[in-house]
Amino acid sequence: MPKQEKADAFVTEITPRSEDFSRWYLDIVRRAELADYSPVKGCMVIRPYGYAVWELIQQAFDAEFKKTGHVNAYFPLFIPESLLHKEAEHVEGFAPQVAYVTHAGGEELEEKLVVRPTSEAIIGTMYAKWIQSWRDLPILINQWANVVRWEKVTRPFLRTTEFLWQEGHTAHETHEEAERETLMILDLYAKVAETVMAMPVVKGMKSESEKFAGALRTYSIEALMGDGRALQAGTSHNLGQNFAKAFDITFQARDKSVQHVWGTSWGVSTRLVGGVVMTHGDDSGLILPPRVAPYQVVIVPIGRDNWRETVLPKAQEIQQQLRSAGIRVTLDERDERPGWKFSEWELRGVPLRVEIGPKDIEKSAVLVARRDTREKQSLAMDGLATRIQQLLDDVQRTLFDRARTFRDEHTQRVSTYEEFKQVMEGRPGFVIAPWCGSTDCEAQIKNETQATIRNMPRSGAPGGTCIRCDQGAIAEAWFAKSY
Amino acid sequence: MPKQEKADAFVTEITPRSEDFSRWYLDIVRRAELADYSPVKGCMVIRPYGYAVWELIQQAFDAEFKKTGHVNAYFPLFIPESLLHKEAEHVEGFAPQVAYVTHAGGEELEEKLVVRPTSEAIIGTMYAKWIQSWRDLPILINQWANVVRWEKVTRPFLRTTEFLWQEGHTAHETHEEAERETLMILDLYAKVAETVMAMPVVKGMKSESEKFAGALRTYSIEALMGDGRALQAGTSHNLGQNFAKAFDITFQARDKSVQHVWGTSWGVSTRLVGGVVMTHGDDSGLILPPRVAPYQVVIVPIGRDNWRETVLPKAQEIQQQLRSAGIRVTLDERDERPGWKFSEWELRGVPLRVEIGPKDIEKSAVLVARRDTREKQSLAMDGLATRIQQLLDDVQRTLFDRARTFRDEHTQRVSTYEEFKQVMEGRPGFVIAPWCGSTDCEAQIKNETQATIRNMPRSGAPGGTCIRCDQGAIAEAWFAKSY
Repeated sequence: MPKQEKADAFVTEITPRSEDFSRWYLDIVRRAELADYSPVKGCMVIRPYGYAVWELIQQAFDAEFKKTGHVNAYFPLFIPESLLHKEAEHVEGFAPQVAYVTHAGGEELEEKLVVRPTSEAIIGTMYAKWIQSWRDLPILINQWANVVRWEKVTRPFLRTTEFLWQEGHTAHETHEEAERETLMILDLYAKVAETVMAMPVVKGMKSESEKFAGALRTYSIEALMGDGRALQAGTSHNLGQNFAKAFDITFQARDKSVQHVWGTSWGVSTRLVGGVVMTHGDDSGLILPPRVAPYQVVIVPIGRDNWRETVLPKAQEIQQQLRSAGIRVTLDERDERPGWKFSEWELRGVPLRVEIGPKDIEKSAVLVARRDTREKQSLAMDGLATRIQQLLDDVQRTLFDRARTFRDEHTQRVSTYEEFKQVMEGRPGFVIAPWCGSTDCEAQIKNETQATIRNMPRSGAPGGTCIRCDQGAIAEAWFAKSY
Repeated sequence: MPKQEKADAFVTEITPRSEDFSRWYLDIVRRAELADYSPVKGCMVIRPYGYAVWELIQQAFDAEFKKTGHVNAYFPLFIPESLLHKEAEHVEGFAPQVAYVTHAGGEELEEKLVVRPTSEAIIGTMYAKWIQSWRDLPILINQWANVVRWEKVTRPFLRTTEFLWQEGHTAHETHEEAERETLMILDLYAKVAETVMAMPVVKGMKSESEKFAGALRTYSIEALMGDGRALQAGTSHNLGQNFAKAFDITFQARDKSVQHVWGTSWGVSTRLVGGVVMTHGDDSGLILPPRVAPYQVVIVPIGRDNWRETVLPKAQEIQQQLRSAGIRVTLDERDERPGWKFSEWELRGVPLRVEIGPKDIEKSAVLVARRDTREKQSLAMDGLATRIQQLLDDVQRTLFDRARTFRDEHTQRVSTYEEFKQVMEGRPGFVIAPWCGSTDCEAQIKNETQATIRNMPRSGAPGGTCIRCDQGAIAEAWFAKSY
């Protein structure tokens, strides 16, 4: 590859967020080295810095899954085409997007293999083997895996042909138990999104037209990005007995009758990394909530030419002190100007910067700069780790509060369609409006305003009439333009 | 699926190990629910218990990689066919085994995509973009991923069409540095295999004919399974500049000249789960070293009909006590006979069983049974967690020592070909013999005895003459029949 092409790989300046949110996002992803384009159309490379964010998100979810009794397993990447076809809605939903393996080991395959777009079909097939009696239930399995869905338009993290995700697949004795699981996972998703990623979300049910192909009901968590578009951040499906019937997953019930199990499935993906970027970032780059920041603190030594002798030893000592306290910290020892280093780490969104120079050492203090508020304060070296931990907690909280305030300021309740359209054309965000439940109204609204129903939170009786058709409303729907 | 097929999924009795090692292995894998066959030829399902073992192995390696400065990333599953063809030996080695995606998103693809059998090609392409100067080096990236190699004969964990692994890919300024990395990883692999999996290994270099397709040199760790066959448990390759030249990965060196980087790659896979089974198991089933045991301790309450009232509360208390001490523990509350539970957990290889009945409670003690030696001892409840932890350490050590003794007893040094053949026909194991370095001799030995050179440990001058041709020996090679 010629060197000028190499240079293209580097974005030198970041487009201001206010000028072009979409370019800003792509610039950050490249420049902060979260991801890069690959030679495979629609597939990205997740670079170490981006992958480290994903690992932290992943660990947080994995711990919660395990706490709630789930176990991990691994099912094959390939699904024989005939299995995918067993559940009618499922195949209709996914067939247009799948990739087929037709040749392998030097031969044409007798039956084409689908590269999994999701694993209900293969997992259902195994559950039919494993489940015999009510004593085998519930089955609470999760899988961390890659999946492939052929996409026409892709964007790093948000929509890629291959992506990483977890998919939970559970089987239960009763509909009630399956519904309870579906909603428990929805709550779990919301909790991790809000407490770990500092990303406020709306929990609710999807409309018929937006539900998972083959599900009875789909619930989602929806977040609002910095440009006022919604991001579907996780989905939890009550599959009813659809897959159980298609894959003949039966069990002998407590009353000795043979019944089909009740299923759920649920997933979050690497798309969440994009959600973090678009929730918190600013013109200077990324802002990472401490709980998902690969480095929570960067130490930058300040000083004259001889800083390696005068400042570095103390900086190393502080690094050691913070590390021992369980803080993820890096020390930037490169031979660059401090100002250059500041911008670099701001761009990478490190929550706290610790500056240390000869004068700080004299005072036995350091200067700490927050990425979120840009406030600086001098902190005594004595007891530094404790103070840093408190600051990190405060950054985490501040980012969440800021995002929630933004979300609330960009959420409006409307009662007429005129108002609805006006809001959608102007300042984007969520618009809450009563809806009659008709797929036609939903489609017309989408056509006319680009807004879709993101979800419908549980709430009291909606009252009023549908924003589009004046029939009685069945729910208050949260509309938005979305990713 | 009809119910009789469901029944087939369950193995009721385990074939004795001494009777038929291969059947014994398959029985354990199924019966202990480590893995199951899937509807996709050659692909297995890793069930939760097997996956939990893999997770522990994975975490141990991942921690070591990170300690030695490596970072994780993720590269695409698909590789455009043309990229795979860039390195001549590499494509020759892998082309016969690859699976091709030819259709996706409802269309025939312009260029076929290979499902990665390994990722040198795609990662090399990215490194060419990322690396410009010696300042960008070394690059120390690891990836946890699934790979696909079309296999004719498969066996759960040991050889499957799809498997999970980690693949490290590094780039360096000099050959020396790359060689140092290759050997450092080899040592790291050996350390984790021996200390975590309690599986003794021989470290050494592969012969030309057994090296990785495209590498300069391949090193491996080789373990001896309970039937005297060797298992290649991990490989570390010095790629030289082969891939750098094929993918044009260049950098401006310290002296301003433009040079190709020096590469390494290395991997361990889910095959290691099979290695654990075949190193430690016995006629009663699996024996798991504590460090890779999903449950290190199982508590079985003993008692009359009213055990739920009389014994269970104390059992739960002990569970809590052990869990707080960081011990992975489960409590078997099922309504089954204790004897049935004992066999079940023996089969699953849980290192320690804690029995607790009314009489134990009176004495404020429990009965602890070791899975490895079957010794039983009464331990006071007071300070139990500490004693259990010591016992677990002892089980870990004992399993390693036992496996090393077995390996040593099944390793023989021979100096004539007659002796070599005799050993190979009789009691299998490693045979150490001088070898001239010729691929012909190696092939003839394989033809005549089925034994291959597993690897050649670093040692002093070998002395003597080749076991097969009487030419001067260049190395002492460790031969064995292998998986």
